[in-house]
Amino acid sequence: MNTKEIKYNPIGIIHSPFKETEGVPIQPHGAKDIKGSIEIRKKLEEGLRDLDGFSHIILLYHFHLSKDHSLSVVPFLDNKPRGVFATRAPKRPNSIGLSVVKLIKIEKNILYIENIDVVDGTPLLDIKPYVKEFRNMEEVRIGWLTEKDDKFKNFKADKRFK
Amino acid sequence: MNTKEIKYNPIGIIHSPFKETEGVPIQPHGAKDIKGSIEIRKKLEEGLRDLDGFSHIILLYHFHLSKDHSLSVVPFLDNKPRGVFATRAPKRPNSIGLSVVKLIKIEKNILYIENIDVVDGTPLLDIKPYVKEFRNMEEVRIGWLTEKDDKFKNFKADKRFK
Repeated sequence: MNTKEIKYNPIGIIHSPFKETEGVPIQPHGAKDIKGSIEIRKKLEEGLRDLDGFSHIILLYHFHLSKDHSLSVVPFLDNKPRGVFATRAPKRPNSIGLSVVKLIKIEKNILYIENIDVVDGTPLLDIKPYVKEFRNMEEVRIGWLTEKDDKFKNFKADKRFK
Repeated sequence: MNTKEIKYNPIGIIHSPFKETEGVPIQPHGAKDIKGSIEIRKKLEEGLRDLDGFSHIILLYHFHLSKDHSLSVVPFLDNKPRGVFATRAPKRPNSIGLSVVKLIKIEKNILYIENIDVVDGTPLLDIKPYVKEFRNMEEVRIGWLTEKDDKFKNFKADKRFK
């Protein structure tokens, strides 16, 4: 299997009110109305054109505070170990995080966002417009999360994935 | 701005019926029922536990056929140049792709999937369970895509992002 190393350079930095992992909402539900901003590298500013037509954007970022990885993790919402790919835990083989946030406005290379659930200073890898394939899906099953779904809203991170 | 290089090793390889970029559906809508599989590195197999409870999964992968990047692209659905971050075009500063696919079954380190819209041999970076934050969002605006949405279904890639 070709598993050649892949290298990325962050396109910008995410700013949020969360100075450390502890206390960060674990899903955007819990991050409702929390304001942040994204500073995109000046030389990439042109790539933001037309993005302001979208109400929501997908952020892909690097969990820079996560060291090592674990194939089995006890998620915040649970007390049983789960396979890491069945969770959103940061301690993944490739520590990529994904959040959907609300885009308020763009001023030059700065994006103002809401519903942000990441730590201040997180390196941003990519932005994608949030489009329809993520909605109106029928018959979605969510495995071990089924009974935990209501817990999401007010749950905050503790230290377990430091 | 700290834009230190980030290195990832693929966790596996995606297999699909598409041997080249041309002809690949540009969104999962157009990929409905198209079958593929994912081969996860043997040593990561433990990380797949509990994933089979989810009907849909998010794949993050590297557009390995995309060379260079462009800040302004003419998307498949359009004839006007758009900022690359307002599109899903592969020629991005960090060529990360995202697809939501249907998970049929898992046998050891092999995942059988449907609705796959990527080229055979694509290196996989991460798998995440598809959960609720992506659904039931109200008032979503989709910018320049608004009037092109119906075109999605039968649209296939041409050579422009080779």
